Amino acid sequence: MTSSVSKVAFIGLGAMGAAMTRNLMNAGHSLSVYARRAEVMQPFAGAGARASTSPADAARDADVVFTNVTSTHDVEEVLLGPNGVIHGARPGTIVCDMSTISADATRSIAAKLLAAGIHMLDCPVSGGVKGAEAATLTILVGGKTEQLARVRPLLQKLGSNIFHMGDHGAGQVTKTCNQTVQVINIQGIAEALLFARANGVDCNKVVEALMSGFASSKMLGLMGPKMANRDFAAGIEARLHQKDFGLIVDMADDQGLPMPATRLVHEQLNELMEHGWGKMDTSNLLRVLEEQQKA
Amino acid sequence: MTSSVSKVAFIGLGAMGAAMTRNLMNAGHSLSVYARRAEVMQPFAGAGARASTSPADAARDADVVFTNVTSTHDVEEVLLGPNGVIHGARPGTIVCDMSTISADATRSIAAKLLAAGIHMLDCPVSGGVKGAEAATLTILVGGKTEQLARVRPLLQKLGSNIFHMGDHGAGQVTKTCNQTVQVINIQGIAEALLFARANGVDCNKVVEALMSGFASSKMLGLMGPKMANRDFAAGIEARLHQKDFGLIVDMADDQGLPMPATRLVHEQLNELMEHGWGKMDTSNLLRVLEEQQKA
Repeated sequence: MTSSVSKVAFIGLGAMGAAMTRNLMNAGHSLSVYARRAEVMQPFAGAGARASTSPADAARDADVVFTNVTSTHDVEEVLLGPNGVIHGARPGTIVCDMSTISADATRSIAAKLLAAGIHMLDCPVSGGVKGAEAATLTILVGGKTEQLARVRPLLQKLGSNIFHMGDHGAGQVTKTCNQTVQVINIQGIAEALLFARANGVDCNKVVEALMSGFASSKMLGLMGPKMANRDFAAGIEARLHQKDFGLIVDMADDQGLPMPATRLVHEQLNELMEHGWGKMDTSNLLRVLEEQQKA
Repeated sequence: MTSSVSKVAFIGLGAMGAAMTRNLMNAGHSLSVYARRAEVMQPFAGAGARASTSPADAARDADVVFTNVTSTHDVEEVLLGPNGVIHGARPGTIVCDMSTISADATRSIAAKLLAAGIHMLDCPVSGGVKGAEAATLTILVGGKTEQLARVRPLLQKLGSNIFHMGDHGAGQVTKTCNQTVQVINIQGIAEALLFARANGVDCNKVVEALMSGFASSKMLGLMGPKMANRDFAAGIEARLHQKDFGLIVDMADDQGLPMPATRLVHEQLNELMEHGWGKMDTSNLLRVLEEQQKA
């Protein structure tokens, strides 16, 4: 990272954002941080970061602004809202949005920022909190090659696999694909293990055997043992997958895309939320099936 | 393998069975073979195997009889039918059924064979024709420990991962789980790549990026590039997956198991068959979506 882009702001200090912020601070970067609740900023301020009063304030002296918040609305608010980054950042600043949001909204936000001379890259990630902590995230980038070249040294502090997927929104489109494949896979694992148990075969053995053949996957290795051992704690908070599937289904509707398994898994995730398991793991898709079996 | 079990019969010389038979012959075993069409046996007879006139004839001097045929009915026919193995095999013979069939039927067949002093192991496999040729199959075994110990040296000539899943039928239950996870995963990959293309992102890049994150799987590595490059040739003949999903849905119905994604993928596979793509690859699930998009 050249000295011209060493000043960094980080907005959104949830589990993922906090881990990324720590990695940037450990790499020696000067950080300003912003979170809605002041107490969330305390540990970072204690370690030398500047606690900001608003996203605009956080962005005031930054070369690169990272955002990692939950919803499309949240991203619009922190970037374009009354106290948003657009009102504090200097022209030439690059915004890296690590959130998982709508690709269409991303393109629209990028255009509005560019009108103020601010560049945007969509940079959603895969790899979870563990990947964020270990700086082994996969980062899916949409936007201009030139801007990615400028922030790549920073992104390399956060993840081990950086993919430039195309222009604005392409990172979000790829993240959508990632969630689609990942959670439909989890649903398949849940159905298989429901079947195994109903037929008296040990679920841990099934996971072990399947991991050696054509059914093997990262999710089978992670979620299979959790389901087999009935460990339903997060892990990956199911509410985030449910939010993502809402986005995907909306886009599929807008574009007239038949995505029947995606729609089905969205329904299963909605049921999961109704049971109150949203802050638990997506392995709870197995418990949704168990409830449907009782009904 | 002790000399007392070195005589082997192989019944069913399709792509998988033929590859396994060659591996057993290459390992120096004395083989008798049986296939419905005599010409299929010619290359094996030319290499020193005994071409048989019926399953009973193939089993006459065998210590271990392998069967690898398509349907539950086929297995019943070659084992219990008028010219079936049960009428030729000596007491103490072990039947290893490598076919993918109903777990319930397997338990019933095993009981009938045992009444004639013949032991059975269900040994369905995962790994495809390539795995059969390279002897790297995963073999999912159901039946008695003692019989598995006797045939294990033979199975090690066919596969690299042998899992004893439980008593009769447990191998088939595990294979069902394998197919459920594998093909639901393929459906998810198809939906994701349909979405990527509709949104202007390069499908090969998406596969590459997803392979580094939580969405990675054996099937994404195999089927993703095939779909991205529109290579729909088998590979894995979709008709076999469609057959397997018929079995799974039947068992789910009998047992009152909610397996909604399994049922949905069964419908997609049925449409694939209606398009006449059954002898092509299961990557054609993408083309089923494309047809649904046109409709």
